[in-house]
Amino acid sequence: MEINFDKTSIIGVGLIGASLGLAMRKKGLCTSIHGFGRREGNLLRAKEKGIIDSYSLDLKKVCEDSDLIVLSTPVGVFLEIVKNISPYLKKGSIIIDVGSVKGRLVYEIEAIMPEGVFYIGTHPIAGSDKSGIDDARPELFEGARCIITPTDKTDRDSLEKINLLWQKVGSHVELMDPLKHDEIYGAVSHLPHIIAYSLVNTIGEINHEYIKYAGQGFKDTTRIALSSPELWRDIVIYNRENLLRLLEVFKGELKKLEEFLKNSESEAIKDIFQRARDLRHRLQNE
Amino acid sequence: MEINFDKTSIIGVGLIGASLGLAMRKKGLCTSIHGFGRREGNLLRAKEKGIIDSYSLDLKKVCEDSDLIVLSTPVGVFLEIVKNISPYLKKGSIIIDVGSVKGRLVYEIEAIMPEGVFYIGTHPIAGSDKSGIDDARPELFEGARCIITPTDKTDRDSLEKINLLWQKVGSHVELMDPLKHDEIYGAVSHLPHIIAYSLVNTIGEINHEYIKYAGQGFKDTTRIALSSPELWRDIVIYNRENLLRLLEVFKGELKKLEEFLKNSESEAIKDIFQRARDLRHRLQNE
Repeated sequence: MEINFDKTSIIGVGLIGASLGLAMRKKGLCTSIHGFGRREGNLLRAKEKGIIDSYSLDLKKVCEDSDLIVLSTPVGVFLEIVKNISPYLKKGSIIIDVGSVKGRLVYEIEAIMPEGVFYIGTHPIAGSDKSGIDDARPELFEGARCIITPTDKTDRDSLEKINLLWQKVGSHVELMDPLKHDEIYGAVSHLPHIIAYSLVNTIGEINHEYIKYAGQGFKDTTRIALSSPELWRDIVIYNRENLLRLLEVFKGELKKLEEFLKNSESEAIKDIFQRARDLRHRLQNE
Repeated sequence: MEINFDKTSIIGVGLIGASLGLAMRKKGLCTSIHGFGRREGNLLRAKEKGIIDSYSLDLKKVCEDSDLIVLSTPVGVFLEIVKNISPYLKKGSIIIDVGSVKGRLVYEIEAIMPEGVFYIGTHPIAGSDKSGIDDARPELFEGARCIITPTDKTDRDSLEKINLLWQKVGSHVELMDPLKHDEIYGAVSHLPHIIAYSLVNTIGEINHEYIKYAGQGFKDTTRIALSSPELWRDIVIYNRENLLRLLEVFKGELKKLEEFLKNSESEAIKDIFQRARDLRHRLQNE
């Protein structure tokens, strides 16, 4: 099946939005790309770099007549954007988002979709601590997982097109229930961010000068603390129920180690480290 | 000043011990290198790779007549080894260790040093999740920090020689109080290990199948959970007092985020993330 989203609009031209634009252009999946954002300087640079053909600070201008609208702002403003653009949307157009939370947000967006416009939630696993267009590249999604989270109400034709879109740009697509998505990514992505930010702030709390003694281990462990505070604030707030539960489990793991440390229970500590190491080893072999 | 440790003995031929041997040989800092270890297969391979000239499973044979003895086993057996080899040590010989904890261990080792034998505690910041001789290389210490932890009793002549040794193999040497060392490295190295192991075990606790959804962020954050459980068991037990204190501070940071999450205090969460990001940024600029 061939797909072409004639006019594609990117709402929030950052790492993911810009990379998707570049990838779609490279694979011939659209005719023109239009950008919306808050900072004109960024949009102008995106145009100069050939990521978008035109831009506007007016959402209406960017979205009317669009065949595909990509929400790639921080997740906290998706609902507001959808409400704002609803009156101008063309019948048959498709909205996707590329946010790192799905869950109830997917149902909330779905609930306000105008008649004849279709929404598909997607999450390309290609984010990083980088968030700007300077790191955008068309190959970003190649070999990366992309989770698509349809619901019972999802339009099957649009789902098929969006599935194909992500495959064409190189992703391995997996369909998943929106709530399950947030449970899983809460554990393997959102919780690690909270931990990395907290670990860096622990050094700040003790003595911020100690940071200069950090070696490669600390750098790796806290690299994701360089991620955009705005993007991650929205993500953790949306997924807070899973996160609060996950934090309890994580604190339970710390508690075990604390007790064993207090009593110098050397073998028990080794067993805990060994169990973690065995599980972590599975990742290297995939 | 020129230095040459005629006969050098490496007790525990792993990543650090083997790399130091290779570096010393390359820089002409010794005449011959002898290895002791628990596993003959590993020692044989070290000999075949040209890391050591000879080996024995008998500590006495390896250490007698040595000019330099390098303790590079897990830190938990340093004291036992020193006790065992004390009767055979040559007058004027120097013992160094390359362990990741110093603190009271330095004073404990110092206290059992035989007359005329000198001990210097050192910590090359060049460890990784790798721990075997296959990753050993003479350049491992080039550009890396090496902390040396003298005490009031440290022999100044030996200190000068060991300082020079680490500089000759490419390290940036810094002298530090042994207790201060453990406070700092507890924060920037030992605590991150405990956290990384606990994070991986959290996934194991929730659903170990979720690990396959982990992206680059999770991989980086938990890379150090691949580190040797034996080495790290000893390190965290020796530094447990600092670690228990550090864990309290870390849990305090988690607690702040939890409270803000419960109340969806979006700006407060962003501020916390921003503070961490600012501090973490300092590392990239050094």
